[in-house]
Amino acid sequence: MSSENIIPFEKIVTKEQRLKLMGHGSTILWFTGLSGSGKSTLSHGVEAVLLEKSIHTYVLDGDNLRTGLSKDLGFSSEDREENIRRIGEVSKLFLDAGIITLSAFISPYKKDRDIVRSLVDPGDFIEIFVKCPVSVCEERDPKGLYKKARSGEIPEFTGISSPYEEPENPEIVVDTSKQSIEESILSIVDYLEQKKYFSI
Amino acid sequence: MSSENIIPFEKIVTKEQRLKLMGHGSTILWFTGLSGSGKSTLSHGVEAVLLEKSIHTYVLDGDNLRTGLSKDLGFSSEDREENIRRIGEVSKLFLDAGIITLSAFISPYKKDRDIVRSLVDPGDFIEIFVKCPVSVCEERDPKGLYKKARSGEIPEFTGISSPYEEPENPEIVVDTSKQSIEESILSIVDYLEQKKYFSI
Repeated sequence: MSSENIIPFEKIVTKEQRLKLMGHGSTILWFTGLSGSGKSTLSHGVEAVLLEKSIHTYVLDGDNLRTGLSKDLGFSSEDREENIRRIGEVSKLFLDAGIITLSAFISPYKKDRDIVRSLVDPGDFIEIFVKCPVSVCEERDPKGLYKKARSGEIPEFTGISSPYEEPENPEIVVDTSKQSIEESILSIVDYLEQKKYFSI
Repeated sequence: MSSENIIPFEKIVTKEQRLKLMGHGSTILWFTGLSGSGKSTLSHGVEAVLLEKSIHTYVLDGDNLRTGLSKDLGFSSEDREENIRRIGEVSKLFLDAGIITLSAFISPYKKDRDIVRSLVDPGDFIEIFVKCPVSVCEERDPKGLYKKARSGEIPEFTGISSPYEEPENPEIVVDTSKQSIEESILSIVDYLEQKKYFSI
């Protein structure tokens, strides 16, 4: 059976109807940055602020996804690519469902992030570069992973033994070595308000 | 990096908070049956009825998913297994997001459906057997796939050249060769109402 045999059904309930029921627009907030830069903290923080505004959200988290959809994948560049591809497709489904989707992944390769961006309409992918020097991330080391990477216990660790390609034109940059968590969260929410993402 | 290095963050916004905002419970409605049995028609029909009740839904559709998340997979038993595994994991994420998730797939193997069931709490997976004799499905042949299967153009076609394992204890059975689409849709919605799935 080839792809030409796949005929998507016309949706009876449309995305517009789902958004109307949600009461707000949907988009993908893609948090990219080094381990320890603050992606998960920020994504959960933004989610908490949006909950107060009665906005429906969901966090797709690299670590959590790794225990489910991508549990068959490792951390080679090929497996990272496939991991990000899958998360991109899942983010697209959540976007279509009318959810503000917060996807927090190291996602070190520009090419892989750009593939996700290309899956959706312009404006539906907001790249948030969670900037933080590797030295600061390593000092924080919330999960003790940098220590394991330095000892060689973890091979191919982003920022140490595997590259991180910084975004060239991200929609939002937060520098968690200079801004507080609260400031970073509010700058993201402000962006969404200014761009009228909460309007349908 | 092994799985022991993966520490899921404690969610700041809980599933309970998301459900409260949604205003209803969430579950997975898993439609299984032969090609042409009516899975997609029924899932979209149930979605339309639930929209009128202001219930947030999303249809995960085999054909649509095949153009995205599972576009790298074919139709061998191994690839069907991996396809259903991925859809199961995605359904679980949607369930956690607070959405009534309608997953419509042939999903021919009992083992694969049971794996999805085991991923979530009891009651969060409602198996709907969309029953219809293969002769009736073949007569309908809405996409002309049975014709291609008979001519050998499509190998491994469920019900013709590949097995379909009927559910042994599905929560709901609808027989689309005997019931109308409307009757089938209402029997599913009635089940959800009786079991109080719309209550939080």
